[in-house]
Amino acid sequence: MSLTVVGSIAYDAVTTPSGSRDRMLGGAATHFALAASFFDEVRVIGPVGGDFDAQSWETLQTRGTNTDDVELVEDGKTFFWKGEYHENLNRRETLETELNVFESFQPKLSPAAQGCDVLFLANIQPDLQREVREQCGSARFVAMDSMDLWINIDRDSLVQTIAGVDCLILNDEELEMLTGAPSFVAAAREILTWGPSSVVAKQGKYGAALFTPEGYFALPAFPIDLAIDPTGAGDTFAGGMVGYVAAHEGEAVDHDLLVRAMVYGTAMASFNVEDFGTERMVGLTGDEVTGRVAELQRMTTFEHRPIGLRS
Amino acid sequence: MSLTVVGSIAYDAVTTPSGSRDRMLGGAATHFALAASFFDEVRVIGPVGGDFDAQSWETLQTRGTNTDDVELVEDGKTFFWKGEYHENLNRRETLETELNVFESFQPKLSPAAQGCDVLFLANIQPDLQREVREQCGSARFVAMDSMDLWINIDRDSLVQTIAGVDCLILNDEELEMLTGAPSFVAAAREILTWGPSSVVAKQGKYGAALFTPEGYFALPAFPIDLAIDPTGAGDTFAGGMVGYVAAHEGEAVDHDLLVRAMVYGTAMASFNVEDFGTERMVGLTGDEVTGRVAELQRMTTFEHRPIGLRS
Repeated sequence: MSLTVVGSIAYDAVTTPSGSRDRMLGGAATHFALAASFFDEVRVIGPVGGDFDAQSWETLQTRGTNTDDVELVEDGKTFFWKGEYHENLNRRETLETELNVFESFQPKLSPAAQGCDVLFLANIQPDLQREVREQCGSARFVAMDSMDLWINIDRDSLVQTIAGVDCLILNDEELEMLTGAPSFVAAAREILTWGPSSVVAKQGKYGAALFTPEGYFALPAFPIDLAIDPTGAGDTFAGGMVGYVAAHEGEAVDHDLLVRAMVYGTAMASFNVEDFGTERMVGLTGDEVTGRVAELQRMTTFEHRPIGLRS
Repeated sequence: MSLTVVGSIAYDAVTTPSGSRDRMLGGAATHFALAASFFDEVRVIGPVGGDFDAQSWETLQTRGTNTDDVELVEDGKTFFWKGEYHENLNRRETLETELNVFESFQPKLSPAAQGCDVLFLANIQPDLQREVREQCGSARFVAMDSMDLWINIDRDSLVQTIAGVDCLILNDEELEMLTGAPSFVAAAREILTWGPSSVVAKQGKYGAALFTPEGYFALPAFPIDLAIDPTGAGDTFAGGMVGYVAAHEGEAVDHDLLVRAMVYGTAMASFNVEDFGTERMVGLTGDEVTGRVAELQRMTTFEHRPIGLRS
């Protein structure tokens, strides 16, 4: 079993209605790895600068995540993002983006990374995602994320990249934007004809929906009274979901496995928003995760007692 | 068994990305009754004008809905609303509102209406809702809806009305607006301390969530490729949910009953959006409803297979 992720490793400055952090460890690959490491050994591909400190290395290596393929650019600075959340976290404003070492990033994968069983392409420029995907020819399951930026400026490349993966995990509004379809339902079904055998529509605080040729599954989010910081929730979701698949090495990645995987992704994401950045995920235990999955089942299960309807 | 609803009966002019209608039967009480009439005899309270035509009476009376308490103002005009939906139905713009006979509406309930077992107060001015509620002293279950307008201009009266009902059914954003809470979860839990023993957060295309002192239940919406017209979906949801409760005359209205009721509400609402106004609901069959509930169960059920998580 081995799980490789390529994506950003970052320092974030975040302000939410609950408070702020000037500089906290973040980035898609970081959030993904913290969740996925509950399921499998994760190998992270991404660049950091000379300012990447010892505590950040330690956090990135939580539960044995392998950082041998993290590229250290001694004279560069780590990717930096500054943002603020408004209106009950419903609106996010980017205040600063410094690409830094990410600007000239060219993924170089070790043979161990290339030989991965499962691969996640976090949100980076789609050409780079495709290059990484092509280096991992033996991967049993490849999933990817993206963002509105690439839909707007690099759609052709993005569509080509999507055609080469097994699973697209994207926000529901981005699915609509990508396809021009009138709903995320129609959008996901269209993308199933492009190449992927599964599409996940992330719906933020509402939950997520899975589309495969075998069927449809939807799961509401775990109810959170006060989300502190949603940064990284989507990558944490992906980490839980893709990690669960990685943990099932011998199994066919069919609809049922993806359903169960999505439940773990949903549970993971709900913890991520309970504190700033990686602060909740670092101390999270397996028992807490299992408990939340059980709670999600209780909260979504109903008995169907058909009754006679009037006509 | 008897179910009374008070609310608007209207003509709507609607434009959506799929087309338009210049004048179609609408109004909260209409949409509610069309759904609830699958479960119980519904009695409608609301005013119409001399322009209310024979076909509209017939539609309102679908599945035996009793219109004896509908007040006909011969020299008045029926309430009229004109609106347009944009951006994949995510944004609604009101172009015209003519209150007409609704402006001076004073609900007068017949003894039969007052003696109802279950009461639904659709969205009208909260003082009027309270007057109706007080006339129905023997009702076993009283639910209500409202809207942002009353939160903004008549909040004190609205809070007083909410205190006197069993169940508040409101959009998730309106729950946040009403309470100032940072999430619909926190908002619903706060409102449970105001008087109601259940709160439902409607989430549009994403689904709905139920809060009671006994627990939490959430259900995603049925996936619709192309919603034609969402007008009345919330009232149709309420009609299915409250109608299901009405059909269970002898049963305690506990968490489990409300869970099953919410599933029927969700199924009903998914049909409503498949065509303009009442057009889909008028021809709907009980078998279609039961089938969709079964589909909702398949689409939301998962097996929890706990796995060993790394630490």
